[in-house]
Amino acid sequence: MPSPGHETARITALDVLDVRFPTSEHLDGSDAMNPEPDYSAAYVVLRTDAADELEGHALAFTTGRGNDVQAGAIEALAPFVVGRSVEEVCGDLGGFSRRLVHDPQLRWLGPEKGAMHMATGAVVNAAWDLAAKRAGKPVWRFLGEMTPQELVAQVDFRWLSDALTPEEALDILERAEPGRQERISRLLERGYPAYTTTPGWLGYSDEKLARLAREAVADGFTQIKLKVGASVEDDVRRMRVAREAVGDDVRIAVDANQRWDVAPAIEWMRRLAPYHPYWIEEPTSPDDILGHAAVRRSVAPIKVATGEHIANRVVFKQLLQAGAVDIVQIDAARVGGINENIAILLLAAKFGVPVCPHAGGVGLCEMVQHLSMFDYVAVSGSLDDRVIEYVDHLHEHFADPVRIAEGHYLAPTAPGLGAQMLPESLKEYTYPDGPVWSARA
Amino acid sequence: MPSPGHETARITALDVLDVRFPTSEHLDGSDAMNPEPDYSAAYVVLRTDAADELEGHALAFTTGRGNDVQAGAIEALAPFVVGRSVEEVCGDLGGFSRRLVHDPQLRWLGPEKGAMHMATGAVVNAAWDLAAKRAGKPVWRFLGEMTPQELVAQVDFRWLSDALTPEEALDILERAEPGRQERISRLLERGYPAYTTTPGWLGYSDEKLARLAREAVADGFTQIKLKVGASVEDDVRRMRVAREAVGDDVRIAVDANQRWDVAPAIEWMRRLAPYHPYWIEEPTSPDDILGHAAVRRSVAPIKVATGEHIANRVVFKQLLQAGAVDIVQIDAARVGGINENIAILLLAAKFGVPVCPHAGGVGLCEMVQHLSMFDYVAVSGSLDDRVIEYVDHLHEHFADPVRIAEGHYLAPTAPGLGAQMLPESLKEYTYPDGPVWSARA
Repeated sequence: MPSPGHETARITALDVLDVRFPTSEHLDGSDAMNPEPDYSAAYVVLRTDAADELEGHALAFTTGRGNDVQAGAIEALAPFVVGRSVEEVCGDLGGFSRRLVHDPQLRWLGPEKGAMHMATGAVVNAAWDLAAKRAGKPVWRFLGEMTPQELVAQVDFRWLSDALTPEEALDILERAEPGRQERISRLLERGYPAYTTTPGWLGYSDEKLARLAREAVADGFTQIKLKVGASVEDDVRRMRVAREAVGDDVRIAVDANQRWDVAPAIEWMRRLAPYHPYWIEEPTSPDDILGHAAVRRSVAPIKVATGEHIANRVVFKQLLQAGAVDIVQIDAARVGGINENIAILLLAAKFGVPVCPHAGGVGLCEMVQHLSMFDYVAVSGSLDDRVIEYVDHLHEHFADPVRIAEGHYLAPTAPGLGAQMLPESLKEYTYPDGPVWSARA
Repeated sequence: MPSPGHETARITALDVLDVRFPTSEHLDGSDAMNPEPDYSAAYVVLRTDAADELEGHALAFTTGRGNDVQAGAIEALAPFVVGRSVEEVCGDLGGFSRRLVHDPQLRWLGPEKGAMHMATGAVVNAAWDLAAKRAGKPVWRFLGEMTPQELVAQVDFRWLSDALTPEEALDILERAEPGRQERISRLLERGYPAYTTTPGWLGYSDEKLARLAREAVADGFTQIKLKVGASVEDDVRRMRVAREAVGDDVRIAVDANQRWDVAPAIEWMRRLAPYHPYWIEEPTSPDDILGHAAVRRSVAPIKVATGEHIANRVVFKQLLQAGAVDIVQIDAARVGGINENIAILLLAAKFGVPVCPHAGGVGLCEMVQHLSMFDYVAVSGSLDDRVIEYVDHLHEHFADPVRIAEGHYLAPTAPGLGAQMLPESLKEYTYPDGPVWSARA
């Protein structure tokens, strides 16, 4: 839907906001490595001079301190974006993302990891939000209606070719092409399966855990998740409480948030095994591919899952090559944006491993649902053993919050990526000068 | 040497400077991934109110753009440092570094990788500089005269125990204890072997390459290094020029700076093999442990080296576990500081792999020589196949620049880490307001 001046429109600004929520005042979100997170967003807005007045919104998620560093990393990308043609950026998001990722000076700060790479992800995702809005589609459909060739062009195959070539990627996408419309219809009718972490935060009492676990089942969830890793005795007790609350037919995943070395991970899971945990998430360092492989060999049939802190596609590639994971947990705001997540979805499809995204935080549910729905429509073509994490935090701050019904994410219909926050929320929670924070100072 | 008020002294400031050198105006420092670097330092100074007026100086190295992001990441650590007791920080550098590394909020920006982890490294190294100055010793001797127990206490063993336990580390250090004084004397007499990258930058003509290679040999170097990876035809020719210039007895290492995927790396090295390259450095992504292992299997007897972009000890651990490297290339300013580098030296000793540090940039030679000399004195106890990289850039800006003679680093004698720059250099090259940059604006 071109508007007047469309073809000559430029990106005129890259605005960055430091937005923080004082979530550490409650114990929601507490786990073995994150005892007191203040869920935060380094929030980016791309503005243009196009007559359509559309903007691109996205964010990098952090847990409080350092959100200013993250915001600074995003600001460092402004010279690569401001002044560029909207048409050129939105028409070649693969090239756009590669230019950011491979800047020969900025890449020294990674390469492709940490604050600088997360910044790239935020800016790339904001460009996708803008492009999808211009197309009038939610991102999952915008992606799901691209041709296989267009999708392959989004991917940076550097360092992947020993595991996935462009030809193999094209083949995966072409094989999934026939059923696309049927799967789009199914998503619109029934949504995408979710699981919930709401009952299982470390700070909760046994009574609260049991009550929330029962409520989750009553709400239609078939999988819940418990945070573990602080005390094995407590975890055995909490696992028993949860198992008794939900019965034998509901999956209970557990999540150690990187707390263990390899041997303690195996021993801890041996203690929890009688209660049949479905997967162990982040048993050890996210960088430890060989460690995950060792844990997986020892804890089977309990599955091993990781991904929310995996820096980039090269590490995901190796987790798959090494047989180190049963579940790939992509995150919408950790890697270099949608383009890199397309690569990771293709790698997972190549190795036949299901993708169950990490979500929660600020806006991660809103964003990542698009990637799973796209995966179903155009990549894996499957819902088997696939669930998106759901956490019931902070959705009220979003213009188009996720909608959950009967344990499913309902397919979003509004154009864009879903990361756009309400103007009043951005104002209230700006750090350190917004009213929420100045009242606390 | 306690001074008045010593025991109650506090760290009063953490100052950060953005210092950049316009090195991109020449082709010194150019390689296949870094065509136009402006060698830069996010420079940190710890000040105290102690009567001795000693300061802790260190830096994170970057290649230009993003140095402000790096400086911001260092500033984010000020609340963890300013106001703390000098005695407590310098008396427990292991505990100090662990508190920075494991802050539950800041670690989200890594964990232990990228700008935030490099910032931790800079601050930790500044604390070591201060501690060594207080002890009146250069860091290599300050470390080399600690007891094995004191050294083990510096190391964060989290995520290492499947490869190295505290007991094994203690055993390595105790085995090397007997010959310490003899090795210290040898270093003071003859220094530590170096190799030079000066002849081999990509931007140089064949004539300049040949001339600089001959000069290097005449200066006493027994190993030189060539940058490769832009054009295989050019590299074959440059390798031939270099081999003819230095003869058969001088080692020629080549460095691809991450340019290749696995298969192209193997093929490229097949083309260079007739000229007997000694090692191939950074053949592919620094995150690709399995990729390095595959390259190593295929290119032997050419050795595989990497490390300057390896994010942390967990990745080094796996490179060693997987048999992916013949040479471990530590860097003084990439990981979380001296404490993490002690862990990496211990891992390398455990696996019997020599450490040949990356250096160059700004101040990397000045800092990393201390780690290699400490390794020789107290960890590996060996100089076999060990060389420190030497690049003849920017040393004139340092208060105690490296001294090279007959292809060796002479052992530094001034107290501290050697990263302290001259006040006039800091002033001249401050970005963007120093005279060097304002004149260019």
